[in-house]
Amino acid sequence: MLERLSHLFVRTLREDPADAEVASHKWLVRAGYIRRQAPGIFAWLPLGLRVRQKIEAIIHEEMRLAGAQQVHFPALLPREPYETTGRWEEYGPNIFRLKDRREADYLLAPTHEEVFTLTVKDLYSSYKDLPLTIYQIQDKYRDEARPRAGLLRGREFSMKDAYSFDYTDEGLDVSYQAQRDAYERIFQRLGLEYVIVRADAGAMGGSKSEEFLHPIAVGEDTFVRNDAGYAANVEAFRVAATEPLPLEGLPEAEIHDSPDTPTIDTLVALANRDVPRSDRPWAAEDTLKNVVLALVDADKNRELVVVGLPGDREVDMKRAEAWFGPRDVEPATEADFVQHPALVKGYIGPWSTEGPVLGLESSSGIAYYLDPRVVEGTQWVTGANIPEKHVFHLVAGRDFHSDGVADIANVRDGDPAPDGSGPVNTARGMEIGHVFQLGRKYAEALGLQVLDENGSLVTVTMGSYGIGVTRILAIIAEGHHDDKGLIWPEAVAPYDIHVIQAGKDEQVATVAEELAEALVAAGKDVLLDDRAKLSPGVKFADAEVIGIPHIVIAGRGVAEGKVELWDRASDERREVNIADVVGALVGRD
Amino acid sequence: MLERLSHLFVRTLREDPADAEVASHKWLVRAGYIRRQAPGIFAWLPLGLRVRQKIEAIIHEEMRLAGAQQVHFPALLPREPYETTGRWEEYGPNIFRLKDRREADYLLAPTHEEVFTLTVKDLYSSYKDLPLTIYQIQDKYRDEARPRAGLLRGREFSMKDAYSFDYTDEGLDVSYQAQRDAYERIFQRLGLEYVIVRADAGAMGGSKSEEFLHPIAVGEDTFVRNDAGYAANVEAFRVAATEPLPLEGLPEAEIHDSPDTPTIDTLVALANRDVPRSDRPWAAEDTLKNVVLALVDADKNRELVVVGLPGDREVDMKRAEAWFGPRDVEPATEADFVQHPALVKGYIGPWSTEGPVLGLESSSGIAYYLDPRVVEGTQWVTGANIPEKHVFHLVAGRDFHSDGVADIANVRDGDPAPDGSGPVNTARGMEIGHVFQLGRKYAEALGLQVLDENGSLVTVTMGSYGIGVTRILAIIAEGHHDDKGLIWPEAVAPYDIHVIQAGKDEQVATVAEELAEALVAAGKDVLLDDRAKLSPGVKFADAEVIGIPHIVIAGRGVAEGKVELWDRASDERREVNIADVVGALVGRD
Repeated sequence: MLERLSHLFVRTLREDPADAEVASHKWLVRAGYIRRQAPGIFAWLPLGLRVRQKIEAIIHEEMRLAGAQQVHFPALLPREPYETTGRWEEYGPNIFRLKDRREADYLLAPTHEEVFTLTVKDLYSSYKDLPLTIYQIQDKYRDEARPRAGLLRGREFSMKDAYSFDYTDEGLDVSYQAQRDAYERIFQRLGLEYVIVRADAGAMGGSKSEEFLHPIAVGEDTFVRNDAGYAANVEAFRVAATEPLPLEGLPEAEIHDSPDTPTIDTLVALANRDVPRSDRPWAAEDTLKNVVLALVDADKNRELVVVGLPGDREVDMKRAEAWFGPRDVEPATEADFVQHPALVKGYIGPWSTEGPVLGLESSSGIAYYLDPRVVEGTQWVTGANIPEKHVFHLVAGRDFHSDGVADIANVRDGDPAPDGSGPVNTARGMEIGHVFQLGRKYAEALGLQVLDENGSLVTVTMGSYGIGVTRILAIIAEGHHDDKGLIWPEAVAPYDIHVIQAGKDEQVATVAEELAEALVAAGKDVLLDDRAKLSPGVKFADAEVIGIPHIVIAGRGVAEGKVELWDRASDERREVNIADVVGALVGRD
Repeated sequence: MLERLSHLFVRTLREDPADAEVASHKWLVRAGYIRRQAPGIFAWLPLGLRVRQKIEAIIHEEMRLAGAQQVHFPALLPREPYETTGRWEEYGPNIFRLKDRREADYLLAPTHEEVFTLTVKDLYSSYKDLPLTIYQIQDKYRDEARPRAGLLRGREFSMKDAYSFDYTDEGLDVSYQAQRDAYERIFQRLGLEYVIVRADAGAMGGSKSEEFLHPIAVGEDTFVRNDAGYAANVEAFRVAATEPLPLEGLPEAEIHDSPDTPTIDTLVALANRDVPRSDRPWAAEDTLKNVVLALVDADKNRELVVVGLPGDREVDMKRAEAWFGPRDVEPATEADFVQHPALVKGYIGPWSTEGPVLGLESSSGIAYYLDPRVVEGTQWVTGANIPEKHVFHLVAGRDFHSDGVADIANVRDGDPAPDGSGPVNTARGMEIGHVFQLGRKYAEALGLQVLDENGSLVTVTMGSYGIGVTRILAIIAEGHHDDKGLIWPEAVAPYDIHVIQAGKDEQVATVAEELAEALVAAGKDVLLDDRAKLSPGVKFADAEVIGIPHIVIAGRGVAEGKVELWDRASDERREVNIADVVGALVGRD
């Protein structure tokens, strides 16, 4: 296919767009691939659309190889199915909702589990119809609180979403693995580095999920991994279980004045001076920090909870959101403290001489959760619920109890992996794919059952598998650019070869034209810069911004039968005979 | 490409869907091509999606040949550009509107003139950049009052919309013609009969527009045409101009009792008996019917108007909507008459002995419009604004005047074409394409100007060109079915050949499989009915419903080296040697 720059709807920009926070956004706009229409909403110009279609073509091929069949569902969907599964509420403000002229509720679908489930229910009734995996590539919608970073977090974005249907757990494992394998092949073909991490299922529900993360500094996800192969999103990381310690022989809890201890370090110093441990000095990790959080549901009801965790840790709000979801998590406000005078700010603790202070059964009635490291028999320094007083040698399981675990403390480099495989390191990544074993959640809610071999009705078990097409495109751009513009990998470049007519004389134009046509005849997609009045310098700069990997320059050398081959990535230029161009560029496949 | 029915996500239905009003809807659902998700909103199952993609591929090819470049714009768009052009209001309840989490207004785009215009403005600034035609194929939205007839009038539907940009009127003519020619080629390739008719531009605005109508009884559009080549949508039909007659020598207007004249015929009889014309008898077309209409704007403001037209005609409400648009037109209500006591129901007329009764300058102040046939010098029988009295010999241009023309009477077979080409006939059709010369309306509203050859800023002139992809699919189905199911034309059939394994013995299965593979190797897309446990009868019925044009039946005959070729359209079956199948089916291209 031959396209001419004199005709192509594109204009490169010399200035960075004002709102560009990341390189992919900057270069995709400057190179004329996309144009912003509203926050997180973009138009796709011809060059951008071609890259998008190349990524889609790879996904289609691999879906087909994985036995998945393409369908196309509406973006505009009625409320009812999402109401049935509870997601109409759970999504909170994160979806676009609207009413039609008859005041019926609709949403712009962020994902399609419900209607795929209902359609399979509509069509199928027997185990013989299964397994089934169906998918679509379609524009999806999410009303992000902070649409940002161009395509990396948009409000209208293209996704491939696939759904599998099986009637046994073993079948689901096979369907899940087929999609997981397809994802690996897709990312390999796209040249995208990825790490498969355990993930939190979140609002999707279900029993098992893994994320494909692309390690990247601008990533919004933090994940942990170690050399032994453990990898998890921090939301899914679980603190390694610790054995309880014996309660016998531990000192009594002791209230002690703690003036001038504004920090954990000063509190630890005071403890070591005035109320020392017999076995070893107190450390920051022996202080028990009690953090007050508000859990907010879709109707804005607030429930206050307190989470106790070692003083050398912080609450990781993303882990807290995942733990307490679908409710939102917010730090407690001054108003919350005013409403709950039992909470003595700065001196909150689970215990007082008059009995438990925190916990559903306590005097405050406020739910109390503990970090998994606060196991029975551990001794703590914590607030005494009296200003300027702390309690020391407070023993978990003897002096205080909780209403349950809250594994929401931040994860640090060196923390042990829960599977015993050794210490983990944290890194930043961006989600590029997500595979879920949903199990029977949606099938149960929507009544999708089939007859099994014995004629008994069984509930179908499902998987859900997503890849962000437009996000992947942005991540590829994020990893493939320099300070002059984009540098596409061959697999997704909008054109294979960029031919530049660098000079105004007729022979140059003729050679450029003939080379472009010869390359097209050899099966290549060629962009020909045939703009008659522009200088070679302007054309070279445009070629660098646009980022097609192979560039042919027909310039002065044509008089001697020579053109230059310019490799965009290495910036290397070499002179070749005109007759050798097709061989040099087509041979490389 | 080989697909197996044992794997394909499809289930044919024996019963008609309850809501199916038309054949295309019925068969597309029964054959498992689409599934309803909400009124006017459908999911596309694999077979349906394949047909859709075949239509899209033809459109893409022809767009490319016409020099149009593909882009992709968001469906979710902000209010502002549509506010600027006035369409946010004009669309009234016909678009889906919504607010994001920051309460900003958005719409689901029904068409994209505004944002295409703004993007061209953003990128281009010189006449050298033009002409430009860009297009997309994309899901669009319209909140229809009565979504009906399956895909024929949906609320989410796929459209190809193209937009051309030129800086001269001659350029627009060329761009318009290129799209118009492409449309003709597209419809010819799809085997879709079409009539190109003059159309009313409606809310789109602009100077010239033509519709491609497919003549079909279930069509929502009425159009007129004659053998001399005149063709117009009824909304765009204009009554042939008539010369005024001399006013001299006409009898005086005369009020006369008109009891017992409930119909036009009784009134005409009374006139001929009591107040005869000297030149010829009164006829129904000499009575002046004054119809009261309410024009309602987007804010629900009502303006009452009266339209005078010959008594043998009715107001055609679609013509009235087109004439008075963007305001809606409604019949006057009892409440309207109560508010306007000057209107004596049943006896309304423009004249009284005390002066004009209708018209902005009259005693009532109500605007008065006249059918183009009510020219100066014509004599009329009409209401005298007194119960049971009419006025006779009332002469237009002498006794009464209007505020303007309203060409909104119904069009009848035999009416003369306005271009003098003779009488027209009316017919029903369905819009399958629409081409508009928008002119400078959008470019002016949104400030799209470029520098011309002389360095002067000139406003760009635009065209807009739409084809309904999903509607076309339904119309093809409407014209290609029998009482057993669908019968696709080869150009858009989901598969080229349907191979049926009709029998359970191994040789039958082997032959079916080998034939399917041989046909695939010859470049055909094959659907293989390999379902082991179903009877031939069930498979034949499914093949008839699904409607692939060529069917190969491998049954008992395989023992003698024979299979049957079954032509779905003619229902003809003929036996052929297995070795001849590929030649017979692939040779026909």
